[in-house]
Amino acid sequence: MSSATPEPCSTLRWIGDVAGRLRLIDQTRLPVQLAEIECTDPESVWKAIRTLQVRGAPAIGVAAAYGLVLGVQPALDSDRSGFLELLERTASYLATSRPTAVNLFWALARMERVAFGSDARLPTRELAERLLAEAHAIRAEDIATCQAIGRHGATLLQEGQGVLTHCNAGGLATAEYGTALAVFFAAQESGKRLHVYADETRPLLQGSRLTAWELQRRGIEVTVICDSAAAQVMREGKVQAVVVGADRIAANGDVANKIGTYGVAVLAKAHGIPFYVAAPTSTFDLTLDCGQRIPIEHRPAEEITHGFGQPTAPAGVAAYNPAFDVTPADLIAALICEHGIISPPNSGTIAALISPNSREA
Amino acid sequence: MSSATPEPCSTLRWIGDVAGRLRLIDQTRLPVQLAEIECTDPESVWKAIRTLQVRGAPAIGVAAAYGLVLGVQPALDSDRSGFLELLERTASYLATSRPTAVNLFWALARMERVAFGSDARLPTRELAERLLAEAHAIRAEDIATCQAIGRHGATLLQEGQGVLTHCNAGGLATAEYGTALAVFFAAQESGKRLHVYADETRPLLQGSRLTAWELQRRGIEVTVICDSAAAQVMREGKVQAVVVGADRIAANGDVANKIGTYGVAVLAKAHGIPFYVAAPTSTFDLTLDCGQRIPIEHRPAEEITHGFGQPTAPAGVAAYNPAFDVTPADLIAALICEHGIISPPNSGTIAALISPNSREA
Repeated sequence: MSSATPEPCSTLRWIGDVAGRLRLIDQTRLPVQLAEIECTDPESVWKAIRTLQVRGAPAIGVAAAYGLVLGVQPALDSDRSGFLELLERTASYLATSRPTAVNLFWALARMERVAFGSDARLPTRELAERLLAEAHAIRAEDIATCQAIGRHGATLLQEGQGVLTHCNAGGLATAEYGTALAVFFAAQESGKRLHVYADETRPLLQGSRLTAWELQRRGIEVTVICDSAAAQVMREGKVQAVVVGADRIAANGDVANKIGTYGVAVLAKAHGIPFYVAAPTSTFDLTLDCGQRIPIEHRPAEEITHGFGQPTAPAGVAAYNPAFDVTPADLIAALICEHGIISPPNSGTIAALISPNSREA
Repeated sequence: MSSATPEPCSTLRWIGDVAGRLRLIDQTRLPVQLAEIECTDPESVWKAIRTLQVRGAPAIGVAAAYGLVLGVQPALDSDRSGFLELLERTASYLATSRPTAVNLFWALARMERVAFGSDARLPTRELAERLLAEAHAIRAEDIATCQAIGRHGATLLQEGQGVLTHCNAGGLATAEYGTALAVFFAAQESGKRLHVYADETRPLLQGSRLTAWELQRRGIEVTVICDSAAAQVMREGKVQAVVVGADRIAANGDVANKIGTYGVAVLAKAHGIPFYVAAPTSTFDLTLDCGQRIPIEHRPAEEITHGFGQPTAPAGVAAYNPAFDVTPADLIAALICEHGIISPPNSGTIAALISPNSREA
């Protein structure tokens, strides 16, 4: 299927009842191919998360929730203790897939609370059905949350503006609609035309492969640039705002996001351009006082030295490949979440809008 | 040949007498293959420059000088006016190969001065020999100039420092030894160990393909990073200096260099890291009062959207691909040229070190 394919597509969807399976778009094949893969066990979900077939903090959370349902399928007719033991083991396993996006741990914890908080007399099959219902709820809430983020964020943008984004915080990074891209989608729906500059986002090009693809499908003007051209685009006055997503936000407003985000934030500040971060409350980790405590994933050197199957650096050369960096809160003009706009972001303004109850351990 | 091949290699070299030919390393094939191509006419030199088989401001200048010799070969036995007419036509043609690096125009003008300033009674074959001698002189001077740049620049670096560079300003960008990389080579030769962080330099990866290859061959520790990771590397305290090359430097010290250089300079300033530019005086264009007047080459979108031999962006998407940007002088701690160190760079300090006579029209 080409990128012009008109049929609707879903980042990830569950097929069938509690004995069903998870289908998700293989994002490593976009934009060349729009194809789904099917996950029938936690191992295939783990692999899909680790290899970025599904990526983006909210989408990882939804995938993990469904992965937990797949994990308990062998125990549908077991006793409760065997069922719960398998659930816990699967949750611990899925938690090792990627370290930075907190939505993964948030979704797994939410699913475990449903299981462990359930009536002890509930048959395991019915318990599994409650877990599936919870995974469906996480997915549905994510869609509603993204719509709210878009509505709030769109108020920050003006007709005719140029905006810049880094990586992909779109429908593909969530159950549907996106976070940073939701802001652009909602602006467009409210009649504001934007021109989006999409950083290609090395090493894995989520910007040119995924963000450009999503914007193009929705008829929003998009221009892909090399990450290193962002400064020049700002200097030429082509962009009036930057909007990005997040993988984890600390209590003080420091934001972990795709490598390169911190640099874009410094450049935006130097050019007097507001830098916004759009993310659901499930991405806030109020247990961490600041961004320095966010675990940062380091990925294989080959992502840099062997771009797309051929050597792009001499054999044996070292590469440093942190997948994320941390943008300090003082470079961020506002955080945009489903409850509204947090500006300026700091421990007080964040606590005021986000109940600690939304981030139970 | 692998990158471990031990034989010496020359960025570009002339084979034979005035009826000879130019051989140059095809830099588009590195680091996978170390192979030379042979140019026997101006068209093949033009194409080699345009397609970046030879690149880097000083190397382009040397290639153009030899290209002019190839251009007059059909007129070795013509009369003087026919010879000079062919020379001028070839020079105008070669000048269209790339617009930004001023060394191209500087070398062509220098060659033309030799021809038009020669004794009118000189046989055309002898005139051609003088042109070949001038091309050889340009090449030899470039090598000596790079050595001097290295010596001056090395005094700015300390034992054990981490340094960052962008693109390739090495031996491959010059006749030999380099400009920015010459500083690292000379530091190493004087006993200072450095660790170089090489921006991979999208879209054409001159950093990971060429800079990493050169440093590895000389036994200097090098780590390749995505361009977007430079800010994080600075924030982690891994680098204490940035050194880059230049394609054209205006009279006030503004520097045109590979796209991304400006962003690195802004980031260095934000992190309190000195940002140095190393370039021969042939790269200074004192006819331009500031960097805004430097013509910037825009290259095909496909360099971004089809970077690795396969589509990396959806079909038909727009891309913005300026090959260079301009770093304002106030972000530059020092310019390093063969005559010494210019710090801070401005119209006065530049004029004081660089005689206007070194930049005749």
